[in-house]
Amino acid sequence: MGRRRASQLLAGYRQFLLGRPTPSSHEQSISGSYWKLNTWRPCCMFRVSVGTPQASNYLNLGKTYAIKQRSFGSAATDIPRNPAFSNLNADDISYFRTILGERNVVEDEDRLSAANVDWMRKYQGSSKLLLLPKSSQEVSKILHHCNSRKLAVVPQGGNTGLVGGSVPVHDEVIINLASMDKIVSLDKINGILVCEGGCILENLSSFLENEGFIMPLDLGAKGSCQIGGNISTNAGGLRFVRYGSLHGTILGLEVVLANGTILDMLGTLRKDNTGYDLKHLFIGSEGSLGIVTKVSILTPPKLMSMNLAFLACKDFTSCQKLLLEAKRALGGVLSAFEFMDSHSMDLVLSHLDGVRSPLPSSLYNFYILVETTGSDETYDKTKLEAFLLRSMEEGLILDGVVAQDINQSSSFWRIREGISEASVKVGAVYKYDLSLPIDQFYGIVEEMRNRLGEAAKVVGYGHLGDGNLHLNIMTTRYDSDILAQIEPYVYEWTSKHKGSISAEHGLGLMKANKIHYSKSPETVQLMVDIKKMLDPNLILNPYKVLPQSCFN
Amino acid sequence: MGRRRASQLLAGYRQFLLGRPTPSSHEQSISGSYWKLNTWRPCCMFRVSVGTPQASNYLNLGKTYAIKQRSFGSAATDIPRNPAFSNLNADDISYFRTILGERNVVEDEDRLSAANVDWMRKYQGSSKLLLLPKSSQEVSKILHHCNSRKLAVVPQGGNTGLVGGSVPVHDEVIINLASMDKIVSLDKINGILVCEGGCILENLSSFLENEGFIMPLDLGAKGSCQIGGNISTNAGGLRFVRYGSLHGTILGLEVVLANGTILDMLGTLRKDNTGYDLKHLFIGSEGSLGIVTKVSILTPPKLMSMNLAFLACKDFTSCQKLLLEAKRALGGVLSAFEFMDSHSMDLVLSHLDGVRSPLPSSLYNFYILVETTGSDETYDKTKLEAFLLRSMEEGLILDGVVAQDINQSSSFWRIREGISEASVKVGAVYKYDLSLPIDQFYGIVEEMRNRLGEAAKVVGYGHLGDGNLHLNIMTTRYDSDILAQIEPYVYEWTSKHKGSISAEHGLGLMKANKIHYSKSPETVQLMVDIKKMLDPNLILNPYKVLPQSCFN
Repeated sequence: MGRRRASQLLAGYRQFLLGRPTPSSHEQSISGSYWKLNTWRPCCMFRVSVGTPQASNYLNLGKTYAIKQRSFGSAATDIPRNPAFSNLNADDISYFRTILGERNVVEDEDRLSAANVDWMRKYQGSSKLLLLPKSSQEVSKILHHCNSRKLAVVPQGGNTGLVGGSVPVHDEVIINLASMDKIVSLDKINGILVCEGGCILENLSSFLENEGFIMPLDLGAKGSCQIGGNISTNAGGLRFVRYGSLHGTILGLEVVLANGTILDMLGTLRKDNTGYDLKHLFIGSEGSLGIVTKVSILTPPKLMSMNLAFLACKDFTSCQKLLLEAKRALGGVLSAFEFMDSHSMDLVLSHLDGVRSPLPSSLYNFYILVETTGSDETYDKTKLEAFLLRSMEEGLILDGVVAQDINQSSSFWRIREGISEASVKVGAVYKYDLSLPIDQFYGIVEEMRNRLGEAAKVVGYGHLGDGNLHLNIMTTRYDSDILAQIEPYVYEWTSKHKGSISAEHGLGLMKANKIHYSKSPETVQLMVDIKKMLDPNLILNPYKVLPQSCFN
Repeated sequence: MGRRRASQLLAGYRQFLLGRPTPSSHEQSISGSYWKLNTWRPCCMFRVSVGTPQASNYLNLGKTYAIKQRSFGSAATDIPRNPAFSNLNADDISYFRTILGERNVVEDEDRLSAANVDWMRKYQGSSKLLLLPKSSQEVSKILHHCNSRKLAVVPQGGNTGLVGGSVPVHDEVIINLASMDKIVSLDKINGILVCEGGCILENLSSFLENEGFIMPLDLGAKGSCQIGGNISTNAGGLRFVRYGSLHGTILGLEVVLANGTILDMLGTLRKDNTGYDLKHLFIGSEGSLGIVTKVSILTPPKLMSMNLAFLACKDFTSCQKLLLEAKRALGGVLSAFEFMDSHSMDLVLSHLDGVRSPLPSSLYNFYILVETTGSDETYDKTKLEAFLLRSMEEGLILDGVVAQDINQSSSFWRIREGISEASVKVGAVYKYDLSLPIDQFYGIVEEMRNRLGEAAKVVGYGHLGDGNLHLNIMTTRYDSDILAQIEPYVYEWTSKHKGSISAEHGLGLMKANKIHYSKSPETVQLMVDIKKMLDPNLILNPYKVLPQSCFN
């Protein structure tokens, strides 16, 4: 693919910008299937509705093997039950009924079935009890009892995790905060929201949007996931590049510790330098140090202007430079900078019906989605277009188009969001969620492509703005020889280049034993010491996050 | 003061905007004295240069009492030396010489004098030894030795703190990281800087500005303070409203623990969800859990356009609403939202030579400084002016002016920055740094004014954009009866309204015993448990942060 002169590109870009046809029927058909439960979405953008009739059908156990075969990463090894844990007995259940009332102590098999398995049906527990507390005090009483009886528990939110962190491994008591879904307060001057941990993210978003604010995080799973779970997993999502980590936006937490202590850290202040800021221990600890029962979060003002550009670059260096320029030129309004390679585009075009390239004249090496959100429609658009024209003149962009309406925006996002769905249509897919330094971001994709040759199709895409790569490796069927070529190589390579083997999904059960690829022995030891201090009986979400060998 | 019609205000505003005279001689005289060492600056904006000849003069012990009398808050009570600590002996000093070399083991009395006292000369220790390590390994060896010998230490950066956290209380060994001032790397795509903990903030800023980035924090003390100290105190500063807390911008740390373990958490990734995010324990723990030896920090792109408006409001409700509007209208470019009451303005006009009001036609109830920084001079100015016109039409602003050049900007800032300097000219001043919910922000100022009546002059100002109030209470001389009317009332009031008794300065020695006003007993107990776990001999910065009674 030769490089065209900037003036030609510019002319082509302008023509496309002004003359782009209205959405065709395939785009309508896309939107029709957009939220279907069995549609594969990118790993941070899925949506499930656990507990609905559709979800019950979807969670039919008979499908487990087929799905496992389609999406295979680091499967959990068989972990023996910790013999120090007690077995649940009738007295325990009577006690829980006394605390919670009859209907919030669930032994119904169908409901337990749904709560015992993750949405991918990759991890399966055998809990006999699901508890639904309605207050922090009830959570406290449950944990106090479980701790004194050495009954293991698994905290569960929307059960939308991807690493097996939210389902039992054995017979842990499931504590789900779905009934703790109240909004406590909103400071309308500063946008500080206080709510219970069981609030569903989408409900919070809807509430805030009516008040002129938005949540600083947005996930495809927002229709099911709970804010307490988001915090416990330190969820990243689509607004990370704009609003940053939850460590920056969470102002306070109320957490119940393993022994039932209610830890009140529910500040609503932007600044508070009185002692150690302990709330951060619980952000991303995957429910293994405490259960998040209340949340105070800083929410940004709602902005009305949104623009989206779909761009082509000749090489990865251009993508890097474009990111730098975008941060400089669009700093205040940049809200997404998403990346995919030609193999990703080819995959989507080949396997998803009704998807077409917004830049059909060629298959380019790399594609970038740049989104801005701001307060001034005309200015934001002018600013984006000036940035795009400059970038074209500098040769960073080979071609590009700006969405003219919501349908075009949806069709652009559909390509990015469709990669994961398309990847499972090939056969088996090995999925990795890596964080890498920007100069190494694409290296592992090329390495794996060279390493596997004709045996596999390798695609790379993800949140380039955050340094978060999704590496998908596809073969016609699952093959242990292929897996042996991928792992532990992919983890070793990531570790060698100072990356993270889990950018946004956590470790859960899937990668608990792989923490040493991203963390030093001294750091892991301190995590273990903190776990033992806060939860000496190890009842909270056992077998997850940290290697079991650390506790033997 | 009657309310004028919006159209009149608008006309007045435009006239002032277009017809503002050039800076007069008094403004030049201000800039001449601007950086003098003995100039009083607002508490987060001071600058000292410890170790320079001027500083040595300034740190003459004879002035201690006078300065204490001028700025009196919660003075430290006499704390007995912990008898568990050993006394330094000749073998210790020999060992340190072996590790560090002769010249980095300082016993010189003059240099020790400077290191034993804080810049305000409020806190005075009696250390006999100052150590200047050049590497993390040297810090590790020092701490390993001190821990095994039970020698207490105080980590010291630029010694610019305001709560006695960076000077010895008794004979603690001082460890200063001034020799660890190397920049390790800069990722020019993402603006990720890695450097040693002893780098001076201003040096980092200068380095970054040449590369097209800025530090996400800026303090008046930047010429002396070290980044390791900034992180250990979770410094706030002038860019907080724009770039948020260090918990959001620090990507990684290397920390040496009390026993000498080097904890490598020096990630350079925006996303890393592999286990507990332990670096946050050390951000704001005031050197009591470990010494920060290396830092990885996300730095924003440098922006060239700056605008500053000086505004008058009739009441505090208008200030609140103006903040909300500013966040909505200027969201992406808002970089400061500073507040002061008429008493603050009156104080500055009465006591500082050559300062005049930019809005001289009246003394208004409240004043607001709004600063924007962005990438587009014309647009940013247009955006600010549109916001100001709207706010005037809505009656939120009574009058206002936008700085036309750097001299006018400096003269506007001079008023805000001059309040602290002016306050000490009255006589004695009792200073409080509070974080309060926005609806209670000004309440304590009015309460104190009513409570103290004619006995004192009470002024309120601060970072309204961050909810950070500086409350200054002035009397002609220090009076224990007045103090008894202020404390513990001010702490009790702050606690009752869910505020923080230390917004940005930390607890240090000054407020270690007052932590319970802002933190629950369970939270303080967990802090104590973590301190004991990480530093069982309690050698790191003893007597600070947490009440001594917790360790008896």
